[in-house]
Amino acid sequence: MLDLVIPAATSKHVGHQLREQWPTYLAYLVSFATIGNAWLNHSAITEYLDRADTIMFRLNLALLFFVTLLPFPTHMLAVYLSNQGAERIAVTIYGLNLLAISGFTSILWHYALWQRLVRKDNSEDDVRALTSKLDPSLVSYVVAIGIGLWRPRIAVTLYLVIALFMIIPFRAVLREARRRRRS
Amino acid sequence: MLDLVIPAATSKHVGHQLREQWPTYLAYLVSFATIGNAWLNHSAITEYLDRADTIMFRLNLALLFFVTLLPFPTHMLAVYLSNQGAERIAVTIYGLNLLAISGFTSILWHYALWQRLVRKDNSEDDVRALTSKLDPSLVSYVVAIGIGLWRPRIAVTLYLVIALFMIIPFRAVLREARRRRRS
Amino acid sequence: MLDLVIPAATSKHVGHQLREQWPTYLAYLVSFATIGNAWLNHSAITEYLDRADTIMFRLNLALLFFVTLLPFPTHMLAVYLSNQGAERIAVTIYGLNLLAISGFTSILWHYALWQRLVRKDNSEDDVRALTSKLDPSLVSYVVAIGIGLWRPRIAVTLYLVIALFMIIPFRAVLREARRRRRS
Amino acid sequence: MLDLVIPAATSKHVGHQLREQWPTYLAYLVSFATIGNAWLNHSAITEYLDRADTIMFRLNLALLFFVTLLPFPTHMLAVYLSNQGAERIAVTIYGLNLLAISGFTSILWHYALWQRLVRKDNSEDDVRALTSKLDPSLVSYVVAIGIGLWRPRIAVTLYLVIALFMIIPFRAVLREARRRRRS
Repeated sequence: MLDLVIPAATSKHVGHQLREQWPTYLAYLVSFATIGNAWLNHSAITEYLDRADTIMFRLNLALLFFVTLLPFPTHMLAVYLSNQGAERIAVTIYGLNLLAISGFTSILWHYALWQRLVRKDNSEDDVRALTSKLDPSLVSYVVAIGIGLWRPRIAVTLYLVIALFMIIPFRAVLREARRRRRS
Repeated sequence: MLDLVIPAATSKHVGHQLREQWPTYLAYLVSFATIGNAWLNHSAITEYLDRADTIMFRLNLALLFFVTLLPFPTHMLAVYLSNQGAERIAVTIYGLNLLAISGFTSILWHYALWQRLVRKDNSEDDVRALTSKLDPSLVSYVVAIGIGLWRPRIAVTLYLVIALFMIIPFRAVLREARRRRRS
Repeated sequence: MLDLVIPAATSKHVGHQLREQWPTYLAYLVSFATIGNAWLNHSAITEYLDRADTIMFRLNLALLFFVTLLPFPTHMLAVYLSNQGAERIAVTIYGLNLLAISGFTSILWHYALWQRLVRKDNSEDDVRALTSKLDPSLVSYVVAIGIGLWRPRIAVTLYLVIALFMIIPFRAVLREARRRRRS
Repeated sequence: MLDLVIPAATSKHVGHQLREQWPTYLAYLVSFATIGNAWLNHSAITEYLDRADTIMFRLNLALLFFVTLLPFPTHMLAVYLSNQGAERIAVTIYGLNLLAISGFTSILWHYALWQRLVRKDNSEDDVRALTSKLDPSLVSYVVAIGIGLWRPRIAVTLYLVIALFMIIPFRAVLREARRRRRS
């Protein structure tokens, strides 16, 4: 996923050249965080499911398609982040891929809810918590892609913020803190 | 699997150059759809099985061989699709690989039926549905490869149509529609 | 694992150039057959086991090391097969890697037998069959490596023969034939 | 993970050139041993767990991040090991990655102990053995990174020693020897 071009060892400024590659590292971090987050959400959906049907399998395949596609926009983003003209194209394509990953995760979950494939012994709170985590991310990606048409680098920062915001379990940390205060 | 050549960022026509790479995207899509479809069929076969024998394991290995081989004809296809002379060779080799994947899936299933390795509590309908899905695809691939010798690009389109036709669960959608109309 | 260099599409002799790459295809086939065979043997060992101990895990890791290493000698073999001087080196290194894969599979099995980690409800026949399949392959590899120092191409052919001989379930086919003749 | 540059087959000194690539092989070996060791420790932690919580999943993801990152410092190390100026940078970055893998494994284990996610039927000895194996490795990595700023090649040797020291089950071998002496 990361495509690090290693500066020639004969150069005296190896350290400087490596630092200059920061867009590559940033793109790698955003992609890892997004896929990691998709994996966490997918695990949660699978855990809540009672059974899967034929269409669930296909939706799953579509999600997998966009997950396996991500390394290419990531690579494009890393290469183009230092160039004004191409940057906008790369950031937009990358954002659309992130939106597709986020979108198919949401579709999978809403389809499961609609077809009543979700186990009935899940607490209503947990089910609502997952919905209220998946849906706002879609809106955030659409907004970030829009901003990216005008200010590409801000969009990349927003993509990282969205992924980290979804990964860091604020809810669990808060609940834990509250539980401790009580006892 | 996808080998996207990213145009130099100094160029002003990055967008145009990316659009010109459509054969790469098409080849990637056809390959993903074919492998996705093989995975769906393989899951269905595994689910219907009661047990596997020594020969099943070997047939499985042969199927895996052609699945792991596919990235190379895919890459060749993407590179040669814009060249008349080489296009025919690439499309034919690619089609033979798709036929081999489809063929070994069919052989696996027919071997399991023949050796009575299939569970007896499967409905006859489900068993027949899988057979009537696997076998016609073989004929379709042979026809598409034949057409490819004469019109390579039509063959690639047909490869995509075959894979999508097998992935989209027409049967399940129809059954669902019928069920809803009744209730 | 396969590193196919795709001839430039402008060339008129694409078909001919692809045919000239036969050593690449052969090396890929030998490596796939060897890893496939290692996987079959590993599955058989795992199935016969009652439990694993600390040392089994380490032996397993050593086997995995040589399996993940194989793509590099494979690549080297494909590149050097058309060159007399380098061919001998490549064929020998490749053979040593195959021997290591085969050797650690045998060590794993003998360690399990020695430490009585094998389930007691396995038929003695099955246990003896696996031993009598794993051990002779070691001798075959040593002989093939020796021949390779003198005639490298014969050694590569032998590597393929050994792998195919172990994959094709002669025993099961014979047993089946005998069973059918009786009934 | 390994990025072996294969010398041109036309050269007469292929054997010599391959031998000159020893830093590549060493870097590959150190990385394989470190990831193998992380896998062994991770398996042990998972086995001792009663259940996992939301934060465990995130810590696991952070560990996975540094494991999937390792091929890049490994590649950099292999390329720079023959160059004095760049060597120090590569060895330090590589060491920090190893430290992060080792560190997150320790954090995972201590978090599980702290939150009482560990099963109660584990022997106290086993639990203490894992702790006394994970924690000292952290100190060793810090020391090795420090030495690396001054003598990079000694640091690489130390990284290999640490990984091998953790993989080889001295404890189990000693216990076995003692058991045999008694009986």
